[in-house]
Amino acid sequence: MAKRRSERVTQRVTPGVTSYRQLRNPYPPMAQFSEDQIEAIHQTSLRVLEEVGMRVLFPEARAIYQAAGGVVDPETMIVRLDRGLVMEAVAQAPASVTLRGGEVTGDVFIGENSVNFGMVAGPPHVSDLERGRRPATLADFEDLVRLSHTYDVIHMQGSATEPLDVPVPVRHLAMTYAQTTLSDKPVHVYSRGKEPVADSHEMVRIVRGLTAEEFVGTPCCFTVINSNSPLQLDVPMSRGIIDFARAGQLMIMTPFTLAGAMAPVSLAGALAQQNAEALAGLTLSQLVKTGAPVMYGAFTSNVDMKSGSPAFGTPEYVKAAWGSGQLARRYGLPWRSSSTNACTVVDAQAAYESQMSLWGAILGGANYLMHAIGWMEGGLTASFEKVIIDVEMCQMFAELFRPVVVDEAELAFEAIREVGPAGHFFGVVHTLERYERAFYSPLVSDWRNYGAWAEDGALNAAQRAHLIWKKALTDYVPPPLADDRRAELDAFVARRRAEGGGAIDD
Amino acid sequence: MAKRRSERVTQRVTPGVTSYRQLRNPYPPMAQFSEDQIEAIHQTSLRVLEEVGMRVLFPEARAIYQAAGGVVDPETMIVRLDRGLVMEAVAQAPASVTLRGGEVTGDVFIGENSVNFGMVAGPPHVSDLERGRRPATLADFEDLVRLSHTYDVIHMQGSATEPLDVPVPVRHLAMTYAQTTLSDKPVHVYSRGKEPVADSHEMVRIVRGLTAEEFVGTPCCFTVINSNSPLQLDVPMSRGIIDFARAGQLMIMTPFTLAGAMAPVSLAGALAQQNAEALAGLTLSQLVKTGAPVMYGAFTSNVDMKSGSPAFGTPEYVKAAWGSGQLARRYGLPWRSSSTNACTVVDAQAAYESQMSLWGAILGGANYLMHAIGWMEGGLTASFEKVIIDVEMCQMFAELFRPVVVDEAELAFEAIREVGPAGHFFGVVHTLERYERAFYSPLVSDWRNYGAWAEDGALNAAQRAHLIWKKALTDYVPPPLADDRRAELDAFVARRRAEGGGAIDD
Repeated sequence: MAKRRSERVTQRVTPGVTSYRQLRNPYPPMAQFSEDQIEAIHQTSLRVLEEVGMRVLFPEARAIYQAAGGVVDPETMIVRLDRGLVMEAVAQAPASVTLRGGEVTGDVFIGENSVNFGMVAGPPHVSDLERGRRPATLADFEDLVRLSHTYDVIHMQGSATEPLDVPVPVRHLAMTYAQTTLSDKPVHVYSRGKEPVADSHEMVRIVRGLTAEEFVGTPCCFTVINSNSPLQLDVPMSRGIIDFARAGQLMIMTPFTLAGAMAPVSLAGALAQQNAEALAGLTLSQLVKTGAPVMYGAFTSNVDMKSGSPAFGTPEYVKAAWGSGQLARRYGLPWRSSSTNACTVVDAQAAYESQMSLWGAILGGANYLMHAIGWMEGGLTASFEKVIIDVEMCQMFAELFRPVVVDEAELAFEAIREVGPAGHFFGVVHTLERYERAFYSPLVSDWRNYGAWAEDGALNAAQRAHLIWKKALTDYVPPPLADDRRAELDAFVARRRAEGGGAIDD
Repeated sequence: MAKRRSERVTQRVTPGVTSYRQLRNPYPPMAQFSEDQIEAIHQTSLRVLEEVGMRVLFPEARAIYQAAGGVVDPETMIVRLDRGLVMEAVAQAPASVTLRGGEVTGDVFIGENSVNFGMVAGPPHVSDLERGRRPATLADFEDLVRLSHTYDVIHMQGSATEPLDVPVPVRHLAMTYAQTTLSDKPVHVYSRGKEPVADSHEMVRIVRGLTAEEFVGTPCCFTVINSNSPLQLDVPMSRGIIDFARAGQLMIMTPFTLAGAMAPVSLAGALAQQNAEALAGLTLSQLVKTGAPVMYGAFTSNVDMKSGSPAFGTPEYVKAAWGSGQLARRYGLPWRSSSTNACTVVDAQAAYESQMSLWGAILGGANYLMHAIGWMEGGLTASFEKVIIDVEMCQMFAELFRPVVVDEAELAFEAIREVGPAGHFFGVVHTLERYERAFYSPLVSDWRNYGAWAEDGALNAAQRAHLIWKKALTDYVPPPLADDRRAELDAFVARRRAEGGGAIDD
């Protein structure tokens, strides 16, 4: 069935470039640590779970741990987990997961050497060159979903901003409605409470045309669980792990361990703590349902020790990413990383910090790069111009993954002989046969000489990106959605709005 | 003796950061091609030299090739080289070279897994945010040398711009005088003719305090030889190879093979041609003097097939770099790559193209990254702000190279236990003992929140870089130069100026 859908695919791609829908990274993953060092980090994590434990605020989660043999202190709510329990549970987690997309997107495979780029999630602000930095609205959210649908190098959605103009009890309905109707890429769902998660699951089920039984066996959406580092799982996070496992939907367990603040200042220590928290969450998931789809998420960076500001795309971030990839592979799990920066403006810093993150994630073997598109300012702002710059950078990696053919024709001895010393290759048949598809044709990069560039307005990359996203919104075409599914979706949303929406956890 | 000098080193480093003088890249080099594919590229190169040949415009060079067994056609000036001759000559080249610097810089080792960053060379324009883009002057050249001396992550100089206000016959005197008096890092010398090269060698010899005999055994300066791709060596380039080999100074053989223009549009073909031209130049060097210090240089990129504009920092550039590193290692030679971009303004594109180049070069195992500092616009402009942005990016790589310690103290189990669930690490002893040196402290990156950043003028990275280079020039301290050496240098330059300078080759 997956195959039939992909045959019908109609997604537009950037003119002149081929599809970036199914990316495979041909390069071997980078190792920051020796196997002994990874083992030492692993053993320290297990010791943390056994001797220090996790504070788990949700009673049902504590009960699940306890039933499996975890030692629970009801007073402190601290759960201590034996290494046997943890490793047995984590061993049940699947090595890959396929997320069901709609007709245009097709399925998204997460595992092995696949690479998937996703939208930023979470910023309360948006910015663009015309309207500046401002609190986000649903209109911004919808425009960012439209952009996420436009470029096929974007594989997964991400609740790209927080629509602050929508009341909290119905906000999840608006966010999931936009994601399910303006795009058909796999949907991002926040774990903010029982009802919001159930509502979003139901909406995703409807648009994918699945029965309730089929939905449980078909991952179509995903959530990200951030532990409250150090070593705490709050109510919505614990509940999200449980609800996503029961629904058979993807749960990405991602401790947000800032070395020097919420984790040790030493990278080895920060990774040991990250790993302990990740293992605790993954264990809960597998205790709820053996084989529930999960990813090992990593988000270890450092703070500026002068100001306490979080930093991203630093050398330490790259090393932590490479180490995290090693840990994920240690457990045979697909791995989620991110593309990040701490920058307020779409300038050289935004690009070099994002590049450092991208190389950390991609060479580390990441299967999913969350926040790869549009993230600015440590996640506080989604930038429309950065969306375009990030699409360009991700497309460059997609092109990097394309293998170089080495055969007699490509080695071009005859062309070299034909041109001879001091000639040029512009007109020879070897060039004419290949020039249209030989090289990546960029989206925003400007390679013209200074005179031509200056005469055309002397626009910098962000200014050119501004024109590009505006045109993309003008040209945007929504994905098809069958009338009966849309009617069912609309009716569901109307009913839930009438009921007052869903309560979120504190 | 090298050791004594380094003990006396007084170079200032960016406050809070350690020395970046001797960098070693701990990561294994990236392989773009299988061994079979590298062999196929190698064999194609040898076939090109045997069957197509190089056009060599300098009679003395043709004579040297002929004396060693090369087949020369006097009419076409084409030299055909047997593979045995080529491989035997190249096998004589040393695997590494140590360039003699002055008291502040110390020696620069090029080989094994060492990484050295160098200034841009060659742009006829300079730019900065205050004075805009303009033809370069000697004053600009001198300021760029001062900046190159300021940051210890810059290991080698680069004739950072072309001082167009200095008459051609004496221009080399001015350029070498600035490099030898305003900095003591290894000196870049253009191969533009017999006299200019000899003058520059003499000036470098004087400031390093070497006898003529010592100088021949002590590489202190370097030249870059670009073949006139495809498959031609002109008079100044051939002569430069010969003169640098005789003087025992470093010759970096770098074909400038733009795929689709001066080389085949296929990457395999472009690399085969690059490799043929590199082997031809390296062979000439070793025929002149067995064991003459050389590097394998690579500069394969692609053109925009719509406009013919050269492109840099592209996905194809990265793949070509990784393949070039494999070829250099195939011959056991140190490898030179570059950090490049095709951008007119210090913006996001300039940063992401430079980053792509840096990762291509560094992960490819490059020992020397020419143009790493200040290059813009495909090499047509040296930017003062880009110098600072590039120093930042190079320092981030230097920090990346620093190994992560994994031992009981760094694994931080006791700190994790002490802080416990939901605490923080700011005040614990483990943090206090380490925070000052735990993380890279940036030069230009701004990690403050939006409010603090906006209140402080809302400067982007290029604007901050502008302030940094201006302050660096104010704070600049020249390296020591003994009075007798300076007197000898001044007398030499005065005499050569009085004699009218040196004739450059056509």
